[in-house]
Amino acid sequence: MTDTYTTDIRVRYSETDQMGIVYHANYLAWFEVGRTEWLRESGYTYRALEGEGLIMPVTEVGCKYHQSAHYDDLIRVTTWIESYNRVRMRFGYEVRREDGTLLVTGFTEHVFLNENGHVVRLHKTHPELYEEIASKARDRA
Amino acid sequence: MTDTYTTDIRVRYSETDQMGIVYHANYLAWFEVGRTEWLRESGYTYRALEGEGLIMPVTEVGCKYHQSAHYDDLIRVTTWIESYNRVRMRFGYEVRREDGTLLVTGFTEHVFLNENGHVVRLHKTHPELYEEIASKARDRA
Amino acid sequence: MTDTYTTDIRVRYSETDQMGIVYHANYLAWFEVGRTEWLRESGYTYRALEGEGLIMPVTEVGCKYHQSAHYDDLIRVTTWIESYNRVRMRFGYEVRREDGTLLVTGFTEHVFLNENGHVVRLHKTHPELYEEIASKARDRA
Amino acid sequence: MTDTYTTDIRVRYSETDQMGIVYHANYLAWFEVGRTEWLRESGYTYRALEGEGLIMPVTEVGCKYHQSAHYDDLIRVTTWIESYNRVRMRFGYEVRREDGTLLVTGFTEHVFLNENGHVVRLHKTHPELYEEIASKARDRA
Repeated sequence: MTDTYTTDIRVRYSETDQMGIVYHANYLAWFEVGRTEWLRESGYTYRALEGEGLIMPVTEVGCKYHQSAHYDDLIRVTTWIESYNRVRMRFGYEVRREDGTLLVTGFTEHVFLNENGHVVRLHKTHPELYEEIASKARDRA
Repeated sequence: MTDTYTTDIRVRYSETDQMGIVYHANYLAWFEVGRTEWLRESGYTYRALEGEGLIMPVTEVGCKYHQSAHYDDLIRVTTWIESYNRVRMRFGYEVRREDGTLLVTGFTEHVFLNENGHVVRLHKTHPELYEEIASKARDRA
Repeated sequence: MTDTYTTDIRVRYSETDQMGIVYHANYLAWFEVGRTEWLRESGYTYRALEGEGLIMPVTEVGCKYHQSAHYDDLIRVTTWIESYNRVRMRFGYEVRREDGTLLVTGFTEHVFLNENGHVVRLHKTHPELYEEIASKARDRA
Repeated sequence: MTDTYTTDIRVRYSETDQMGIVYHANYLAWFEVGRTEWLRESGYTYRALEGEGLIMPVTEVGCKYHQSAHYDDLIRVTTWIESYNRVRMRFGYEVRREDGTLLVTGFTEHVFLNENGHVVRLHKTHPELYEEIASKARDRA
């Protein structure tokens, strides 16, 4: 698996629920941490992109829960570009416990929009970022 | 659409993000409100079921985002049983704004477990609840 | 207790933690629901005020926890204006369970700012809202 | 300032609100991260203590907001024991931006309870932890 990036997260007490495990919606926030760090590793920050008026709203998510994460676990979020077709970009994610146990797999799909909510042609407005993403997308290989 | 139940939710400020819309993970918490109220309408409370040692952890979620919800919107979550096969139960959801605009569609899949984490044969342990769910599942029709 | 407003909230599963009770930070989000509804009852919406460029960031909070709220409890948030001195406004809150048991008491303090982050002289820019708040503040009596 | 511990946190997108800043309730979750790491640094984990049946519910919080944290900021939470009197323990916190700017100051107060909800005499049940906390409390000096 190349062009992936793994970031570590310590599970917070606030992320648990009364079942004694991490509430399932919190993995989506961790996915967001994963793609923020994937971008940073690729030389960009989502903060700066958004400052330039480029936003990446989520259009779809999917998530399968295999094992539960618990309070104070050190978990690892691995992120990659699953596919990219100039309009939609899909990130893939794996969440594992420190010992390697697979907890959750998932994806998020995004579109690039400008501040007015119009679709951005990334290869025209941000050609370098476009190349970076396209070259790393798994469906390109 | 029969055997569905719709519950209203007022969007909280805490549920927005800096894009000025509802953070996408919060719809999963609203789905939970939806199935809690679906169960209550069917004569059960998840609280009581959990008190009896029956838990329904989430094994999979999927969510498509069509339009954004905003702070102070009154939104409507409609919930139904998409499928049920004695092992896995899938709830379906639609989230609409007060004016009817479709915002989000999604599903959550669950297994019934006991306190020891073992799969429960609902038709044996809770035959009435089993009948209630099975009779309302869309894939039964 | 006059000029208070009480709003009901059903506790969500997502608001619990592994102690089996509502995570303490969630009361702050409920306080926000309380003041949103207090304003609505007074003829204003925070949404509209923010749309006009008037924001009310929180400058201080305090919260005492007497008893715990649990999943699926119906709880009641009572909100009032504790004090107002043209610069700072303080809301007071009481959270009770349906049966009247006192769960939490607290306050939030706010300043009125415009979009540029400057303090707003409410009695000049929004004299009617100013009068509404000043007339209801407990420290006026 | 001795016997303090500082831990770094990267602000998540999910922690922002539509004011474009971190939602004020999230600092309480960061305080929890702060005291979890303070305990770990002192040779204990809250996870293990809870596993032994010792819980530390929050009885009071206070928080002053000086400046706002923003998405992707690296912030530093400094934690210490403000006071301890065998029944109540108070943690103090400072949250600063990476550049040293003071963002938030606050405290949380806790009692030690056992699994049945009864107050624990820590100097009898956990004398080493008692000594650790008492020796580091600022009100001891």
